[in-house]
Parts: sequence; structure tokens; C-alpha cells
Amino acid sequence: MIDFRSDNTHGASPEVIDALARASVGTSSSYGEDRLTDRVRERCNSLFEREVDIVPVLTGTSGNALAIASMTPPWGTVFCHAHAHIHRDELGAPEFFSGGAKLFPIAGHNGKLAPAEVTRVIGEVGREGRTGRPSCVSITQATEEGTVYTVDEITRLSEVAHRVGGRVHMDGARFANAVAASGESPAALTWRAGVDMLVFGATKNGVLVAEMLVVFDHSLLDELTTRWVRAGHRLSKMRFLSAQLDTYLADDLWLRNARHANAMAARLASGLDAEILRPVDANIVFARIAPERARTIREKGFDFYDWPLFGEGAVRLVCGFSTTERDVDALLAAIREAQ
Amino acid sequence: MIDFRSDNTHGASPEVIDALARASVGTSSSYGEDRLTDRVRERCNSLFEREVDIVPVLTGTSGNALAIASMTPPWGTVFCHAHAHIHRDELGAPEFFSGGAKLFPIAGHNGKLAPAEVTRVIGEVGREGRTGRPSCVSITQATEEGTVYTVDEITRLSEVAHRVGGRVHMDGARFANAVAASGESPAALTWRAGVDMLVFGATKNGVLVAEMLVVFDHSLLDELTTRWVRAGHRLSKMRFLSAQLDTYLADDLWLRNARHANAMAARLASGLDAEILRPVDANIVFARIAPERARTIREKGFDFYDWPLFGEGAVRLVCGFSTTERDVDALLAAIREAQ
Amino acid sequence: MIDFRSDNTHGASPEVIDALARASVGTSSSYGEDRLTDRVRERCNSLFEREVDIVPVLTGTSGNALAIASMTPPWGTVFCHAHAHIHRDELGAPEFFSGGAKLFPIAGHNGKLAPAEVTRVIGEVGREGRTGRPSCVSITQATEEGTVYTVDEITRLSEVAHRVGGRVHMDGARFANAVAASGESPAALTWRAGVDMLVFGATKNGVLVAEMLVVFDHSLLDELTTRWVRAGHRLSKMRFLSAQLDTYLADDLWLRNARHANAMAARLASGLDAEILRPVDANIVFARIAPERARTIREKGFDFYDWPLFGEGAVRLVCGFSTTERDVDALLAAIREAQ
Amino acid sequence: MIDFRSDNTHGASPEVIDALARASVGTSSSYGEDRLTDRVRERCNSLFEREVDIVPVLTGTSGNALAIASMTPPWGTVFCHAHAHIHRDELGAPEFFSGGAKLFPIAGHNGKLAPAEVTRVIGEVGREGRTGRPSCVSITQATEEGTVYTVDEITRLSEVAHRVGGRVHMDGARFANAVAASGESPAALTWRAGVDMLVFGATKNGVLVAEMLVVFDHSLLDELTTRWVRAGHRLSKMRFLSAQLDTYLADDLWLRNARHANAMAARLASGLDAEILRPVDANIVFARIAPERARTIREKGFDFYDWPLFGEGAVRLVCGFSTTERDVDALLAAIREAQ
Repeated sequence: MIDFRSDNTHGASPEVIDALARASVGTSSSYGEDRLTDRVRERCNSLFEREVDIVPVLTGTSGNALAIASMTPPWGTVFCHAHAHIHRDELGAPEFFSGGAKLFPIAGHNGKLAPAEVTRVIGEVGREGRTGRPSCVSITQATEEGTVYTVDEITRLSEVAHRVGGRVHMDGARFANAVAASGESPAALTWRAGVDMLVFGATKNGVLVAEMLVVFDHSLLDELTTRWVRAGHRLSKMRFLSAQLDTYLADDLWLRNARHANAMAARLASGLDAEILRPVDANIVFARIAPERARTIREKGFDFYDWPLFGEGAVRLVCGFSTTERDVDALLAAIREAQ
Repeated sequence: MIDFRSDNTHGASPEVIDALARASVGTSSSYGEDRLTDRVRERCNSLFEREVDIVPVLTGTSGNALAIASMTPPWGTVFCHAHAHIHRDELGAPEFFSGGAKLFPIAGHNGKLAPAEVTRVIGEVGREGRTGRPSCVSITQATEEGTVYTVDEITRLSEVAHRVGGRVHMDGARFANAVAASGESPAALTWRAGVDMLVFGATKNGVLVAEMLVVFDHSLLDELTTRWVRAGHRLSKMRFLSAQLDTYLADDLWLRNARHANAMAARLASGLDAEILRPVDANIVFARIAPERARTIREKGFDFYDWPLFGEGAVRLVCGFSTTERDVDALLAAIREAQ
Repeated sequence: MIDFRSDNTHGASPEVIDALARASVGTSSSYGEDRLTDRVRERCNSLFEREVDIVPVLTGTSGNALAIASMTPPWGTVFCHAHAHIHRDELGAPEFFSGGAKLFPIAGHNGKLAPAEVTRVIGEVGREGRTGRPSCVSITQATEEGTVYTVDEITRLSEVAHRVGGRVHMDGARFANAVAASGESPAALTWRAGVDMLVFGATKNGVLVAEMLVVFDHSLLDELTTRWVRAGHRLSKMRFLSAQLDTYLADDLWLRNARHANAMAARLASGLDAEILRPVDANIVFARIAPERARTIREKGFDFYDWPLFGEGAVRLVCGFSTTERDVDALLAAIREAQ
Repeated sequence: MIDFRSDNTHGASPEVIDALARASVGTSSSYGEDRLTDRVRERCNSLFEREVDIVPVLTGTSGNALAIASMTPPWGTVFCHAHAHIHRDELGAPEFFSGGAKLFPIAGHNGKLAPAEVTRVIGEVGREGRTGRPSCVSITQATEEGTVYTVDEITRLSEVAHRVGGRVHMDGARFANAVAASGESPAALTWRAGVDMLVFGATKNGVLVAEMLVVFDHSLLDELTTRWVRAGHRLSKMRFLSAQLDTYLADDLWLRNARHANAMAARLASGLDAEILRPVDANIVFARIAPERARTIREKGFDFYDWPLFGEGAVRLVCGFSTTERDVDALLAAIREAQ
């Protein structure tokens, strides 16, 4: 089976396994007091061109929920895209971690929040102070619809949030793909554009299991790490998380893997004999393929998800770091033949 | 440095790394819909001599808190030993996950809860129904004090819990050590003695990072897995957790590692030129070593924790799966010489 | 000043004060074990034409939040109108009491939920089970827009909820006004139409401070009362709440007060020299009165709230149980003159 | 029946009913924007000899839980007496409101916390930071055992709390009785002795239903009032709560009622033909009366609670503001005769 279901069906880069093997020899201090965790922090300082705090986690859901909870009180309101993963795919994790904050889903073209619409909704919600306190704007980069925010778009959303005393969270499950797609630096796409906290994904892009909270406002760290421990997300043998992240950041593995996945999606889009439903900025192609045709393609050994949210016949085709040109070309051929 | 600080400072058995390397090739279904996760379930069915449900997690804290939250309402009361990890070392994780349940710490000799005392406290707390609803008795096996409950002790505690409609949680961070020490079967020490849910530890005993909730009452599964997802503890690439657990259970690696660690602790205890403060049932030795003497030993390249809870000069010496006879003998010699 | 700001600015019917005076003599059992509380229960059985459970509370917010929390798990999803009080005016009380449930606001004409739209949203949210579990549909009767649901409308919404295993909550802050307006019986508007729990308002309609949860599904009572105690909403001297409710239900005070308030609103609407923005089913008139004109009216000694949610120049005029024909006629004259 | 069960079985002083009757005429602004609420604030400023913030509530449980939640994070630890109402009689309200804080019950003679023991427990709990963050010491004044803390005792407990960055909460359900008993000023017993927030009880001492949070640290007000609204404890028709509190504070009604209740308890204690189990500082007498004898007394028309917590045959006899000398003398006679 050739797999276009998700980037989380892919395995891990061999370098990552090697790093784990090295880290598993001998004993080491627990709870992050180890050399590898220190090195991840240093690599992030360098990558983001400033001092940052990092908190390694194991899932995007926990990273997002911890970030939001540390930036919003129980009576806070969080503004996000109507299709945002934090709202639609995490079974209420942000509500759980924050003690009951309220998520306000906002519609937006191509998976992006529009600053004017966010301003309008915040204004309406915040007017009398009876609904909640505007506390966070959450941006997904790359978006759930496979598009990538520009630096200017992020900057304007951050301004909207900061104007009402709110914070900016970036769900970067596919942050590497966004960096690769935009050609912008990690710094430009985050803190320089006003982002307060980033969940920097790695799981979908070549490691076994690892994500990393990157904190740009040091004053948030104490509460964040307290919540992290209390939620059972701090590993005693942290070095095994750090070993993965260290390898991910070394020699630009994160960027190389993302560039490759993006290139595969571009190749797929450019050869596709079907309607493309969203701009292909990163590593995902949404297309319309009639159910009968899709069945034929699946019978030939390909797999991918239907995406009814985008209308009848919509499917999602995801390229991962281990998708090959051969995989893409085979799919393109199968689609053509299934006409 | 020779390390007796904790079993979580040790690395991983080489078989576990090999399994991860194998699992990282190609793509695989996400969220536990994979072959390795199925096999872990089958191995557990066989090991526990009945059908069980399993839920893999990454930390003991999350396992304990999820288990307790799925068995106790927000207004429940949980009865545990005064030194229990869930009460003293998890920053309130059970309270967080359960939505505010109340933990009742109960003193007990050698780290064990005594059924009569638990009965008395539950009676007092439950009398008027104004404090909370007795919902759970939590047993640590092996205990925080390095001792191991007998089947009979567990059975009697379970009866106390069940008599008031409560459940029994077992924190088995060192369950393998308890099985190795007691010579009892996993079934005898758990469901046959009335345990409703076990957190079966692996992290401290030879894998990278993995624990496993073993559920003996199927009716608890739906709420448990819902909480697990909502807390961000379900891995998308679950197979990397399952690969570790599969290897852990295959060929009795879990039991061999635990037997070895226990044997090292026994060797240490039997040769120790110092007062031993608790029975050495499993892999931990608590001893009294005067601060000056301890300093000398540390200067010779050994490390271990002071344990002020057990009085002046108390230290904790932990043997792990990778502790060698040579390590133990070197420590024994250092202790003698530091006289 | 003649007051059209809200029905909660009005005082209490004299009968209610008399009842409190009688109840304050001597001693009486606490926590609801008193004769008055029993009598309220009996009156409700009779009024609702079946056995019901009742739980007296002091605010609509606590009544709504307790009702919802007892019918929805922390991972539940609650579907309500976009302008619902529970979503927009209670600072997240339902989220707090439920432990983080998710409210899904749904737009609807004249303040009413449309069954087809609720079906659509539940379908989308519930499809993959990754967002939450559909657990409750909340209906406001009379609505925030001053309209009243028909029995048929309620029945169809209940069917939508029950079809997915959800429950039906009715926020009846102005339930008396809805009964008075519709000519339907309390039974017809609630349990016969599928409602599981009603918050029967009294505060806005002639008592000092009192509301009442009316529970039609006895299996919900245990959790509901536990939550009620735990939230500090059970009064030790409950008889002072029950004395009010007893008087409210005796001799149809609740219905007479509501009929009067509705009649005053009808009188106001029929004589109004301004655009009326919503159907005037109950005791509230929404009208468009230009800001300059509104200022003139206020200067003549009337008060009422602007209602920007309904567009420029929108105002809300509320009649209470103590609004007189003279008050209404004076306002009508002032509006005409302010032309 | 002559009632010694609790002070919450008593009714209300006639002045309070009169005040409610006056307040129920006409309309008034909602949510505390009224003249009566202002006047309560002014009376408190004068009574406490400084500017204070006040938040009226309806139950002691909600007052305590709101106070504690506004002074302790979800991961905070609260230190209180083992018999404290907040720990034993509120069904986990502090845990619910705080989002899962941990209460540490501490044994203490005559219902009082001893500073040295509190220091010891905080030291043990706080040592490694793995249990929670010491955030609050809670003092009950008068205590659950009918005793009254001295100014010096409160001062020393406050020092213990403040030394670790914690706050001091005073559960003053019987604060009036403590003031009457000690002859100290309200200021001396609270903020001058380091108390950060007081729940000033009125329900048990002559009003219908009302308590009042008195806040000595203004920085706590914003979070406190937010939590108050979110928990459904802010009344729309606040003036009916304020009318009671206004009357309670005017002409020292609060103090006169408490002095009377205390005097009745003293009269009871001094004439009692039975073992007295605790010092009778305020309005409660704990005595040992054998079950047979107690039954005889009850058959003569008296009622009171058994108090098994204080040993076999222990009973609690509570005098309220409406207990008369005749009631007391009749009970004394009945006890003598029941010999």
C-alpha cells in the first residue's frame, strides 16, 4: 500500500534511531537535567536567533493545550479558525487544560483567520465582559487546509490579540513545512511577528514521537512547566525525547524533511488530473475525486482520506518526509487511469 | 559515576532499540490501529490469563491520574498511603484529571496500607456523606518504601474498597519488581486479588519510555480512553510505544530485568555495612549513612539520594536493570572504606 | 425614573414578603428537610401533572450550569442559540460546572434554534468523534429575543437531541411568560415535549431571589444534587427559598404576574411609534429608536438599554410584574413626543 | 420542640424582614449597582477601620471556596485543621472552585491549628516542590470545636503562611461569636493579625441568608469577583442580600445577637450536669451525655446532634440568637432529671 493518509503514518529518519541507540547506553540524570536537553535548548536559541525556553512534549494536543492554558485563565476566550485542530480534533483538550476556557471558532478563507473578522468577533464577545475575557488568538501554521500564513498576516493577527491584552499561540504541527514553503526564517514567522508561544512539531516530519514548546515570553515558563508536570507530560527519561529533537535540529534535518514533503506535494499537484480545492502551499493536496474513481484508485493499492468537510468527493492527499517521487508518480498514474 | 539514584536514570535494553528501528520503516496506521499494538494486547491477555484492555501511556503520572479519574467522580475520595507517589510526587495530577477529587493520605508501616486503618478512615470520612464519596483505594506495588504487598494483603484492601462501592487502583511503576520478588503471577497480584486497574510500569525497567494501563473491568474503558485522548496522551504514532511494550513482554524481558535489579539490591543489602531501614523486598535499599560518610562515598564516584523522610542520615540506593554486580561490589567497598 | 431596563430591577410581590416573615419565626430543620420545601415539591407535582424532583437555587446562572453539568460529561458538546444567555452572559459558568464542556453557538431566526440547523451542526461535530460527544441541546423559553417556542418546535428539537443520545435543557428564566403567552400548560411545554430539565425562573417575576430546577428524569437527581452542594448553592436555611417559591406557585401568582407583564408589553408594542424588531410574544419589546430620540426620552425620566446586537438604534424595553399601564402609557407618550 | 441542633435552624431578626419589605418596593439597579450595597461597603470600612472590598454571597461554602480559589492556584496546597468545615463538610467545594488544589488536614488541640505543627507540615510538603505549592492557611474563627483563636495565635499562623508566600483565609461562619467572645475588634482579629480574606457569616446569626466576603488585599478582588460571577453566586437583585447585611451591621445587630448566643452557651455550660468536652468560648457546648439519657431528654422535647467525632456519648448543643434563658434552663432541668 502506498500511503497518502497522513504524515503521521510515516516512520522516522534513520539518524533519529541512531541517536536513541546512543542515548540508551549508561545512566543519565532524569527530568531534563541532561546534556541532550541542554543542547536542544542551545540549538533553539540559535535557530530562533534569541534566547528561548523550550519544553519538550510528546503530542501536538498536549503542546497546544499546555500553551493555551498557560496563556488564558479559565474564563478566557480563545479565537481560532473554525476548522482548527484545537477546536475540532482534540476532544476538548484546551478546555480541559485551561479549566474551562471558551473557544470561539471563526470562519476564514483557505483555513486562515482574517484579522478584520477576528477583530469583529473579539469586539462583539468582549463588549460587555459577560462572555469571557479575550485572552488568546490561535494560529495554525501551516493551516489545516494546507496553506501557509505570510509574515504580514501573522503580524496583523498578533496585533489584534495584543491590542486586547491577549496572547498569540501558534500550532506548528507542520511548522517546518511552513518555513520550507515560505522561505522565511523561524524567527520571522514567530516572535518577530508577535507569536508568544509555538508548538514546533516534529512527529509528522521524521522523528518517532516528539514536539517542542518554544516559549518567547519567559514570564510564561513557570506556569507552563507546572502545568506540564501536573498533566503527566514531563518524562523522567527526558533524554529520549531530547535525543530525537537534537537530531531533528542538527544539520537541518527538520528543514530537509519538510522541503522534501512539500516538493512531493507540489509534484503531485502539478501533475494531478483532478480539481484542486485549496492552494498547495505545503505538503497537502485537497482534490475532488469522485467516489467511484477514488475506490478504483484505492483498489490499486493507494490510501488517502475522504474529506467531506470540503464538499462532495473531496479527498486529502498528504505527502510525508518518506514519500518518494516514485510514490507520487504512481499515484498520478493511478488517478489518470481511474478516469 | 556509578549511579544508584533511581531506576529512571538507566537506559534501555538493546532489544528495545532494535524493535524501534524495525518499526520506523515504512508507513503504518495511526492511533493504535496497528499490528504491534494488537500484539501487545494479545501478550497481556496471555500474561494476565484473561481478556484485558490496555491503554499505552508515556508516564507513570499520566497512567495513575487517568486510572484514578476514570474510577472516581470529581467528588470522590481516594485513599492512599501517606507517602504514595500519587499524593506526594505528581503535583496534584489525580486532582487535575479527576476534576478535584480528594486524596486521603493514610499512614502505614513499611509503606503499606493496613486494611483496618483504611476501614477506619473510610468509615469516618464516609459517615455523613458531607466530605466526599469513597471511590478508590490506591495501592503502590512495589511500595515507595521498597516493600511488596502479599496477595492476601491486596485482597483484604480490595475488599475494603469494594464494600463501600469503591475501586482499586494499583500504581505498578515497579510492578515487575513486585512479581519477581513475590513469585506470584501477575494475575494473582492483580485482578484475582480484586484490583480494577493496573499501571504496569516499563520505563524504570528497561524500555525507553512506556507504561501501560491494564484494565480488568471493561466497563471502565470508554471513559478511560476518552480522558486519555482529551489529555493529549494518545500518540498518533502509537506503534513506537507498542514496539517497546511488545519487546518488553516478549521472552519475559520485563521479568528478567526486574529479577536482575532485585538480585542486585539483595546483594547490596546483604553486604551492607550500615543500618537498613526498610525490608528489602524489591530493588531499593534504604539505609542510614551519616552525612560525612555519604559525602566521602559520593566523592569516590557514586551517586544516590538522601531520603530525609526516613530520618537523619537516611539514603536511598536504587538498583536498575543495568546495575552490575561489579557496581554493587564497588559501592559496598566504598561504603566500608568510608567508615 | 420609570424603569424598562430589565425584569430583574423590579421588587417582589407583597405576598412573598409576608411569607418570609412567617417563615422567620422559630426554628426549623436545615438543608431542605422542612415543611415548606415539601410543599413546593407537591405544588410542582400538581403543576406539572406528574412526579418531579425539584432543586431550589438562587440564580439562573447556577441553575443553568448545574442542569447542563448534570447532563453532559466534561467532553460533551452543548448546542445552543448564538445569543443564548448560557453562552454569552454567564462568564463560562457551564464550562466551569461541567469541567470543560464545549458550547456550540448556532444562529437562528428570532432567537430560536431551527431543528434542521441543529441537526446539521450536530452531524458535522459528531461525525468523527474527535470534537466531543453531543450531549445537550439547550432551549431558552421565552427566548432572549422575546419570542416563545411552540410545543411543536420544542418537540422537534428534543427529538434531534435524543436521537444522538443527548438531553434537553430549558433555560426558563422567563418560563412563566412563555406559559402565559402560549396558553399551553407547563407540562406541554416541557416534559411532554421532551425536555429533561427545566430552570423555572421566579426572580424576574415577583419574588426576591429564587429559581427552581425541575427535573423530569429522576436518574439525573443524584449527580445534580451532589453538584449543587459542592458548588455552595444549597442553602442551610432552605426554607427561606422555599417560602418564596411556595408563595409563587400558590394561587397562580407566577402566572398572574407573567400575564400582567406580557400584557404590558403588548400594550407597549401596539401603541409604539417606532419600528419593532422582533415579534413581541412575551414581556420584551425590541424597537429601533434613534440615539438622539432615545436620549430625549431618557431625559424625561425613563430608562432602558441599548441593544447594539440588533443593529444601530436598537433598544430593549422590558416590562415586569410591577410595570403599570400608567408607566407604559407615559413611555408611549414620551416616545411620541421625542419624535 | 426546643432546638439546640444548630444556629442555622434559627430564623431571622424582625429588623431584617422589615428591611427586605422596604427594599422590595419599586425598581432598582441590578448586580450590586444599588444604594444598599454601597452602604454595606461603607459600614464595613468603618467596622474594619480601613478600606475593604466586599463581595456578598449566600452560603458559607461558596464564600470559603471562592476565597480559597482566588488565593491558590490549581496546584496550590491549603493547610487547615483536620475537622475544618472546608475539608470535611463542603463536599470538595474548595477543590472544585480552585481547579483541584490539595487540602492538607492537620490535627490540633481544641479545634485550633498550632503554628509549629503547620510549619512542620508545610516544610515537609513544600520541600521538593513535587507535591504542590504552599498557598493558603485556613483558620476557622470561632472553630468547629467552639473555641476562639487569640490575636496572637492568628498572628503567628499568618506569619507561617506569609513566610512561604501563602495567604490566610478565615472561615468566619461564627466570626461574630468570636468577636463577642474575645472582646477584640474585627480589625484586630483579621487584617491586623495578617488575615487576607474573611468570610463574615450572618446566616447563623440573625439574617435570613447572607454571608459576606471581606477582602483586605485589593489585588485579589478582580479574580475573586470573576470567579463569583462564573460560579453563579452574584445575584441580579443584589439589594436583597445587601438589605440583610445592611441591617445586620447597623446598630450592632451582628454583635448583639452573637453576644446573646454566647451568653446562652455560657449559661448552659455553667449549669450543666455533664462532662464538658471542649472549652466553651463561643455559642457551642460539647458534652458527654450517655445515649439512654440523651434519648430521655429528646423525648421531653429537646433536640441536638450526637457528635461521635468526639467520642462515645458526645453531643453538641448549639445556642442561637433566638435561644432564650427559658430554653436553656428548661434543657438544664431536663438533663438533670434524665440522670
